[in-house]
Amino acid sequence: MRIALDAMGGDNAPYEIVWGGALAAAQTQDSVILVGNEAEIRKALRHRHPKIRPIPDVEALMANGRLSILHTDESIAMDDAPAAAVRRKKNCSINVCMRLVKEGKADAAVSAGNSGAMAASALFILGRIKGVARPAIATVMPSKDPDRPTLLLDAGANTDCHHEWLREFAVMGDIYSRLVLGHEKPVVGLMSIGTEDSKGNELTKHAFPLLRDYTPGITFRGNVEGHDVFEGKTDVIVCDGFIGNVILKTSESAAHAIGYWLKRIVFGNFLYKLAALPLVPALKRLRHHMDPEVYGGAPLLGVPGAVIITHGSSTHKAIAYACAAGSRAAAHNVSKEIAERIAALPEPPTDEELTELIGHHGQRPVETAAENR
Amino acid sequence: MRIALDAMGGDNAPYEIVWGGALAAAQTQDSVILVGNEAEIRKALRHRHPKIRPIPDVEALMANGRLSILHTDESIAMDDAPAAAVRRKKNCSINVCMRLVKEGKADAAVSAGNSGAMAASALFILGRIKGVARPAIATVMPSKDPDRPTLLLDAGANTDCHHEWLREFAVMGDIYSRLVLGHEKPVVGLMSIGTEDSKGNELTKHAFPLLRDYTPGITFRGNVEGHDVFEGKTDVIVCDGFIGNVILKTSESAAHAIGYWLKRIVFGNFLYKLAALPLVPALKRLRHHMDPEVYGGAPLLGVPGAVIITHGSSTHKAIAYACAAGSRAAAHNVSKEIAERIAALPEPPTDEELTELIGHHGQRPVETAAENR
Repeated sequence: MRIALDAMGGDNAPYEIVWGGALAAAQTQDSVILVGNEAEIRKALRHRHPKIRPIPDVEALMANGRLSILHTDESIAMDDAPAAAVRRKKNCSINVCMRLVKEGKADAAVSAGNSGAMAASALFILGRIKGVARPAIATVMPSKDPDRPTLLLDAGANTDCHHEWLREFAVMGDIYSRLVLGHEKPVVGLMSIGTEDSKGNELTKHAFPLLRDYTPGITFRGNVEGHDVFEGKTDVIVCDGFIGNVILKTSESAAHAIGYWLKRIVFGNFLYKLAALPLVPALKRLRHHMDPEVYGGAPLLGVPGAVIITHGSSTHKAIAYACAAGSRAAAHNVSKEIAERIAALPEPPTDEELTELIGHHGQRPVETAAENR
Repeated sequence: MRIALDAMGGDNAPYEIVWGGALAAAQTQDSVILVGNEAEIRKALRHRHPKIRPIPDVEALMANGRLSILHTDESIAMDDAPAAAVRRKKNCSINVCMRLVKEGKADAAVSAGNSGAMAASALFILGRIKGVARPAIATVMPSKDPDRPTLLLDAGANTDCHHEWLREFAVMGDIYSRLVLGHEKPVVGLMSIGTEDSKGNELTKHAFPLLRDYTPGITFRGNVEGHDVFEGKTDVIVCDGFIGNVILKTSESAAHAIGYWLKRIVFGNFLYKLAALPLVPALKRLRHHMDPEVYGGAPLLGVPGAVIITHGSSTHKAIAYACAAGSRAAAHNVSKEIAERIAALPEPPTDEELTELIGHHGQRPVETAAENR
């Protein structure tokens, strides 16, 4: 597979990005096109990365075409409004990556740049898969079961969602989970505030019967709640982008706070500090398990092409994993299957039919919701 | 203060509840009325609690009226629909507690029973404070700063909210944070998916100008996001009850998963296990810091009276803290101040004025939202 890698996007660009690309090219059969300012890219590649062992042989990779540079000197400034910037700066590195995919010169686009810019550029250049109302950003979250990460979508592309969009998210998540994350029969859950069928807000109450009765091909588990996020029993969690974003960031905040408290308690006491020393490798393993970098970034699903967005603070390691995810998404033709499955979806019920389906569970919202605390 | 304690509510009722009540009566100046089946309560009080030191002198407390029993034998079964049950069973223990508050025979009601039943009973018997559209459940969350817990509301009473309700939540949260949690000038934040003023979904975009310009008396920080939940820089976080419930449960899930991973790594290796032994007290302190039991339960704000809901799994410790929170809420007249502040709120803007206020920040939702990942 050929990966178009935005060398200029992210807090650590271009250094970590280009070395992440070199690592991906060295470790896999993929070829990587570094898109950005050629002089800066070459300069970054001259300083061997101190943390990569063995260090990729950049000259050899370049010589046989596994690593290449595509020059563009337009770039998006940190303070540009991202969505507007990709419209104005036609040849910014993100746009060039998307065009490579569009024109069949690359199989996947990967960037650690602003996710809004990334989504806007993808929509602008690649457009949407026919039948998909709204592309969604899907995030891979660790779970108690190390072999069973959970895919959460939408993680921030669409704040206010129509219930029919959630059906599309479920289908797209099912496909990505199966083809890229390797779950044979992913279990899909609808994020709500109680596991009973009737629980939730207006959006989830409307989405529930759609997912249960009008979405062939998925294994629908029903409502899940916050407690289920890291349990590893649900492979795909569907929600609107506001909720998804809050879940993602709250989890990061909780993990961060726990680390902070633990450090404060242990480092505040000399004996604890001493006792903790032999456990450092264990804590490193814990850190690795929770490390979002190893999960390969967040695919933008619903656009015709494999597009992977990674965290702005991505290091070479995260970039290499993201390139691998992009490669798998392209190799397994995720977009093509999304197009087919979306096209085959049955006509959704009319508003009246849907109201009828929900009606049996109608309760006054104040009371229903409060029950779930 | 006189606390009406629902002895029959919660997973550990009546044993942990009645001993929690006895502990509260012994440790404070409050008197506690245990409401429920008298025979069961007396039986539970005969078995001294193994974990409480010094054990409260129940006979002495009873003799001087600091601990008393109010018999009722109607009870809500586990599988009753909670809101309906409190309507049907007029003399269930929750209803009796509420009536004691209503009739001025108690200053606060505390229960570890179903929060939906609790909210329904409070609305049914106490009603709402004049001007309050929807009472909200507020949850106290730990933060990085041990002296500065964060109040999150609504935590589950109202799934789909009107933006004007969020203004009331802000006022009620401000008051509880100041009077009960002791923050002199609480900082109030609006839960959104980015800190810029223009970010969010339709609800938060509408609520933002209301909180900024139409809510005198609060210190409004603007939008906060998931990353801010445990930072300890915001004392009151306002959101709809769906989001609040998801935040609460996702945080619990993350903490649980981290504990699970840590145990798995440490216990999977004999040397790690040995090394971890001296750290057990440190881990206990961490556990205590994260323990929701010490934060005194969740007040139901917006009803005329101090009503505290605690976790179904509450132990005696949680119950004692909840009684203390109820006592403080009553002593500081939280309900009275809510009534005054809500009555003094300025007329909200008309829909047109509000649209005008939001208008400046109007962007297409897909792009705006995606920028925040």
